[in-house]
Amino acid sequence: MLAIKRKQVHVDTMMLREPFTTDRIFCPGPTPVPRAAHTAAQDAAAIYHRSDEFYRDFLRCAELLGPVFGTKQQPVILTCSGTGAMEATLIKLTNPGDEIVCVVGGKFGERWEQLARAYQCNIEVVNLAWGDAPTSEQILAAVKRQRQNKAVFLQANETSTGAYYAVERLARELRQIYSGFLIFDAISSLGAHTMQMDTWGIDAVVAGSQKGFGIPAGLAFVAMSERGWAHQTIRPRFYFDLDKERKGQIEGRTAWTPASTLIYSLKAALEQMHAIGIERVVEHHRHLADAARAAVVAMGLPIFPRQPSNALTTPRLPDHIDGSKLVKRLRSRFGAFLAGGQDQLKGKIVRIAHLGFVSRFDLLDALAALEFGLAEEGYQHDLGVGVQAAMQSLAKA
Amino acid sequence: MLAIKRKQVHVDTMMLREPFTTDRIFCPGPTPVPRAAHTAAQDAAAIYHRSDEFYRDFLRCAELLGPVFGTKQQPVILTCSGTGAMEATLIKLTNPGDEIVCVVGGKFGERWEQLARAYQCNIEVVNLAWGDAPTSEQILAAVKRQRQNKAVFLQANETSTGAYYAVERLARELRQIYSGFLIFDAISSLGAHTMQMDTWGIDAVVAGSQKGFGIPAGLAFVAMSERGWAHQTIRPRFYFDLDKERKGQIEGRTAWTPASTLIYSLKAALEQMHAIGIERVVEHHRHLADAARAAVVAMGLPIFPRQPSNALTTPRLPDHIDGSKLVKRLRSRFGAFLAGGQDQLKGKIVRIAHLGFVSRFDLLDALAALEFGLAEEGYQHDLGVGVQAAMQSLAKA
Repeated sequence: MLAIKRKQVHVDTMMLREPFTTDRIFCPGPTPVPRAAHTAAQDAAAIYHRSDEFYRDFLRCAELLGPVFGTKQQPVILTCSGTGAMEATLIKLTNPGDEIVCVVGGKFGERWEQLARAYQCNIEVVNLAWGDAPTSEQILAAVKRQRQNKAVFLQANETSTGAYYAVERLARELRQIYSGFLIFDAISSLGAHTMQMDTWGIDAVVAGSQKGFGIPAGLAFVAMSERGWAHQTIRPRFYFDLDKERKGQIEGRTAWTPASTLIYSLKAALEQMHAIGIERVVEHHRHLADAARAAVVAMGLPIFPRQPSNALTTPRLPDHIDGSKLVKRLRSRFGAFLAGGQDQLKGKIVRIAHLGFVSRFDLLDALAALEFGLAEEGYQHDLGVGVQAAMQSLAKA
Repeated sequence: MLAIKRKQVHVDTMMLREPFTTDRIFCPGPTPVPRAAHTAAQDAAAIYHRSDEFYRDFLRCAELLGPVFGTKQQPVILTCSGTGAMEATLIKLTNPGDEIVCVVGGKFGERWEQLARAYQCNIEVVNLAWGDAPTSEQILAAVKRQRQNKAVFLQANETSTGAYYAVERLARELRQIYSGFLIFDAISSLGAHTMQMDTWGIDAVVAGSQKGFGIPAGLAFVAMSERGWAHQTIRPRFYFDLDKERKGQIEGRTAWTPASTLIYSLKAALEQMHAIGIERVVEHHRHLADAARAAVVAMGLPIFPRQPSNALTTPRLPDHIDGSKLVKRLRSRFGAFLAGGQDQLKGKIVRIAHLGFVSRFDLLDALAALEFGLAEEGYQHDLGVGVQAAMQSLAKA
């Protein structure tokens, strides 16, 4: 009797797995990992992290990382998640009581604010409606509300909403009159958007391995301006001591045991990115984003953020479609892992990532899965019109 | 100077590889290999082929194979290509001088004829225009032209043209009056089309590992009727001694060293096929074929064979499109390995396989690549209309 019941669960045809579909990730991190990155990790499993061979390869990684940040400074590689790199940066650049501005336009803006609060900064928040991007005027107004502002913390890309903060314009406008530290969490933006931190006058950029770099989670990066490095604070620190890391890493030596196989995955991924060309990688992401937006519009769905990112596309779902159910269906029916909305956006949006080692065919598959899923959930549209619009956009690119 | 020349070759933008595309096979064999099949092979690399563990797993394989052929007889597993299994079957069922009929409607019909000629059979050929499928009348007429016909050799699916020979109808019609051996090369058909050899009165069915079974090349299968097994011939044989193999394989022992890791890949693949259900696997292939044909028609291209197969779809290309160049472009630009035409069809058709462990998304990718490639080669059409037609067909299935 129990056996029969079990069987009935399996033959719920509307949730039945389509034959031969495999699990695939279309999330804004972790992103698909190229085979070369896996292979490199396997081959490097026996390499000791206190050896000349490792130091040499680590340095090569750091050298290949720099251009993605647009900096001549050597980025520091940490074994932690992006949040750890955010924390290390805040520790390095602020003292308790320092007046700082946080831009909060989604879940990751909130993270800067939470971090700064945990570390007793005096915070002025630029509160945005989720999906919006800040203007330099909004940020400068917040700075002016403080007596002696030290820094502005914000995102390049608010992953929870799919909004891009137009980093170049923002940085150039702020730098006309603002001389405090300017710190960007570019965790979900690097690779998908150009970053020229030296030229644009940015003091710190934080990134993570499982996003545009296309390798598993476990490494995070901090690139810093010269004056950022020169700045000293009194906070206690140990694992997240960027100065100690920097001093060792200039010779390829990490302060603590690094996730060494991930270093080799990173090296393989960066070599692929440089073989394509960093500019072309960014251009490719722009083409994918253009195509994804064309698809969403053709499907009759509005795009949620006003300034959409190259890393992900976020359609607002119609009221009669339950986004959480849709996301569940895409996973169970097609193995397609798209991200839903978080917190106040739960059930209301779906996030189609096209970040990292994503080909045009990967994007088309994600869009096809979304269209199939929407149709099965009762959304009426000319099925396939989104994919066709994306194809036409890609062919014109 | 040499270096500069080299670089110029690489920046031929029309043949430039699209970022992050990986090589993928959309050929009618070898077909995509599921991860579980690879993993199983790796895990089994140390299993000795003369051990009880191997015998048990080999028998499990044979047990899972039977239903794909529609037979209660244990199929024999050979370590060779499909051609080897064809040869073993011909050796087992014919003597020199035996009168047989071969149906030649493409490259693989020619193979039966070449084999039979090498083994001194008296051959009556049913010559079809490439792309056509035989009728039972044509076959019976050829049989009648012989004094004492012993056997008919033909394909289930002529891979070179994409024609399906409607096995059930053909076998049932022939069996009304024909009592000789009926032998099908079902190498590119099993998994994509139902085979019920016991019920339909078929004496031998030959298949290969790298087609519907979704594992690498190296294994081939022969399933035979009871009266086929009882039939003895005088030909010398050694490696391809089906009786010797059968006697051992009933206990899991192969006569010669088997490709043992492929046996484990096969087991993993067959377990996946049975988990889905053999009938549903065939139905899935029919849905893919319906979708592929809808796409090709929507793209304005005629379908080459009159009775198209569930395993591959073969559009006839317009005269101004060079099929060989198109196939080359698909590989170099998108990593999409589609097969072109062979011999008299060279440059005139393209073969889109949807055989084996192919998901609906794999098919959409192959179709999208074909549309991009055709557009780049100057074929005017409403780009994406094929993929959309395929999606609508799949959603209705």
